[in-house]
Parts: sequence; structure tokens; C-alpha cells
Amino acid sequence: MTAPNLDLMFQALADPSRRTMVDRLSRGPASVSQLAEPLDMSLPAVVQHLQVLEAAGLVKSEKIGRVRSCTLDASTMSQAERWINDRRTQWERRLDRLGDFLEQTKDDQP
Amino acid sequence: MTAPNLDLMFQALADPSRRTMVDRLSRGPASVSQLAEPLDMSLPAVVQHLQVLEAAGLVKSEKIGRVRSCTLDASTMSQAERWINDRRTQWERRLDRLGDFLEQTKDDQP
Repeated sequence: MTAPNLDLMFQALADPSRRTMVDRLSRGPASVSQLAEPLDMSLPAVVQHLQVLEAAGLVKSEKIGRVRSCTLDASTMSQAERWINDRRTQWERRLDRLGDFLEQTKDDQP
Repeated sequence: MTAPNLDLMFQALADPSRRTMVDRLSRGPASVSQLAEPLDMSLPAVVQHLQVLEAAGLVKSEKIGRVRSCTLDASTMSQAERWINDRRTQWERRLDRLGDFLEQTKDDQP
């Protein structure tokens, strides 16, 4: 597996239309027309957004007959999620240790 | 609490220098100079990146005397994390149900 490209992943998720597409795909595979349904834009514009999601590794698509079927790549999703989670938990553990320290200091000086 | 601005959050995390700053802040509060240390850029450029992180709500900063002290906002971090997690788990639950269905179908036709 290649290293996750976090630049591309977070960039892809920074757009509301692309998040709508990811949201739709989280409920199951969809064609490009199905992805376009809730979006107020042309089909070529949807295809461009799809290409950004594919370049980031968040979505895979495959042409089956005349229809391009898109699916979510949960493993790439989890890499973006883990990057945030690692930093957040490190920060929260630090706050916990600070809390413990203050609690101990309180006991020292009644 | 205002609604999280996911556009700004993910946009802020899409830059490697800003992720380096978030990474540093996950280990504790830091001054702007401390944030600049591992980065090959001018202090004004670091301040600009800091403003992007602050606008996204990921970082808070406060001027104490002559020094601007920056801290991570874990609650905003967790909102970005939760958005990804919700979609990923929905997709994985769907795959699990599909697996169960295929397993049952296999039993039906030995």
C-alpha cells in the first residue's frame, strides 16, 4: 500500500458537493447520475469532483457496460480519520495528565 | 456552539505545514516561534497559516505579554473526525450486512 496522501484526502473533503457524494456512497455504490441527483450541477462537473475523490483514494469507480459504478474506499477514509484521532487523543491524554498533576498538588497543600 | 465549518476544517488540514503545526500543538501549547521551528518559512508565513487554523476553529491563540500562545481545540478536531467516522462506519456496517446475507444464501443452497 502506498503512503496516504493526506493533502489530497483533506482537500477532497473540503468541498460540500464532494462530501455530499461521499455521504451518498457511504450508503452503498452509486452511478454518476445517482451521485448527481442531489447536486445542482452538470454531469461533467460531477465527474470532475469524482476525479478529485478518486485521486485522493477515497472513491473507486469502474465502468460496467455503459454505467460507471462508484464505491467508497473505507481504508483511505480511516487513514484521514486516524491522522486526526492520533493528534486529538495525544492532546487529551496531555490534559488528563495535567488534571492528575493538579489533583495531586491540591492534596499536597490542603 | 456554532455549527462546525467542515469546509474550513478540512481545508486547514490539507496543508503539510499546518498539519506540522497541529502535530506540534497536540504535544502541548506553543508560541508562534516554537511553531515556526521545524518549518522552513518566515514568521509572517507561519502567522498566516496560524490564522487559517484559527478561522477553522482548530487552534486558539492568546497574546500573553509579548508572546502569542497557541493551543489545540480538541472539540473541533473531534467534529472533523466524527464526520469521517460516521460515513466510514455506515459503509462498513453495510458491508457486514452484505456478508451476512451472502452467508445465509450459501446455507440455503448447499
